[in-house]
Amino acid sequence: MKIDIISAVPELMLSAFNHSILKRAQDKNLAQINLINLRDFAIENKQKQIDDYPFGGGAGMVLMIEPIDKCINHLKSKCSYDEIIYMSPDGEVLNQNLCNKLSLLKNIIILCGHYKGIDERVREHLITKEISVGDFVLSGGELPAAILSDAIIRLIPGVLNDETSALSDSFQDNLLAPPVYTRPAHYKGWEVPEILLSGHTAKIEQWRHEQSLIRTKIKRPDLFKP
Amino acid sequence: MKIDIISAVPELMLSAFNHSILKRAQDKNLAQINLINLRDFAIENKQKQIDDYPFGGGAGMVLMIEPIDKCINHLKSKCSYDEIIYMSPDGEVLNQNLCNKLSLLKNIIILCGHYKGIDERVREHLITKEISVGDFVLSGGELPAAILSDAIIRLIPGVLNDETSALSDSFQDNLLAPPVYTRPAHYKGWEVPEILLSGHTAKIEQWRHEQSLIRTKIKRPDLFKP
Repeated sequence: MKIDIISAVPELMLSAFNHSILKRAQDKNLAQINLINLRDFAIENKQKQIDDYPFGGGAGMVLMIEPIDKCINHLKSKCSYDEIIYMSPDGEVLNQNLCNKLSLLKNIIILCGHYKGIDERVREHLITKEISVGDFVLSGGELPAAILSDAIIRLIPGVLNDETSALSDSFQDNLLAPPVYTRPAHYKGWEVPEILLSGHTAKIEQWRHEQSLIRTKIKRPDLFKP
Repeated sequence: MKIDIISAVPELMLSAFNHSILKRAQDKNLAQINLINLRDFAIENKQKQIDDYPFGGGAGMVLMIEPIDKCINHLKSKCSYDEIIYMSPDGEVLNQNLCNKLSLLKNIIILCGHYKGIDERVREHLITKEISVGDFVLSGGELPAAILSDAIIRLIPGVLNDETSALSDSFQDNLLAPPVYTRPAHYKGWEVPEILLSGHTAKIEQWRHEQSLIRTKIKRPDLFKP
């Protein structure tokens, strides 16, 4: 899978892609992530502009259509893309089901807004999908782009050391994951549930499933709805 | 505001805090962010362990209670905290209202899980609040911790250059933000709405409010519900 991420501040994401699972996925050639600096496509004036004041007045700067259009056209001239995604708080809300679908794609572009947002004409004419990571506002789309990349790349077969690890995550069966415990069994009088120390694999699996159900019912009953 | 972030892979977040608005907030002394390496509190065996296999079997590694307990106690011995937050997909779902509330706190700890999660006893005995950035699973809590920090720090007065900028964001009034446009007014036959070029401030504000309502109605009717 190839992910090209366009941003006005690409260096903000650098460390997210250079550690842990995202680094390993790239080292194993299971994912290719390119951070593209929108400033390389700035309009050719003295200021090398990529943003400007909003028409009609108001606070904040808006990313201009021309550098984004030039950048996307440049990328499209070398590769065909399944989706050109814009990270936006008013996009489709990301969930595990959408992550699963996106993890099957081959080439995608993720465009990060920054400051007050991007010229609306980019969204109307150049973007194929808008995704939100939640109902809150951030300084830019960079962290959401890193989150989206992480969420989908870890689903690619071979990226996690143990493939069953992703399958037993929260949400994969519309249930929250059961509680986990590790050594020591006793710590400051706080105990691990005895069943987990019993060695009865079948009973442990049953207990975990029950815990998932209880936890989902208490914390997120909405997940049971169709 | 002081945010102490405990992680097994703190370097993963480094670039997020060293650029753009989060950097400016720290430079202006409006926010202090400390990345704390859980490995500095590893248990004192040969392997300098911080994680172990889950009791009862299964895939993935689990962060142990002892290093986390030692780390939190060390921090608490020097400062009192309003909240000790654990980033988890089964926590309270983050939204703008929760960001507004958290932005008023003085000192918080954010604990990031990694790998399969953390020993449940940490959540039962040491954590005061669990927050989720959405219904999807990530490699760790590091990117969610960066997102949470960004979402709340940008609300601290003085962090954004123009204070009205955050107030006109999406969700602050339970509405999505209206479309924004910037120069050029004409691009490849794609035009900016005439009203925005009219100079009639009152009419522009009215148009923007209408656009917010229309956009919210089409994209996120659920935001209208109480």
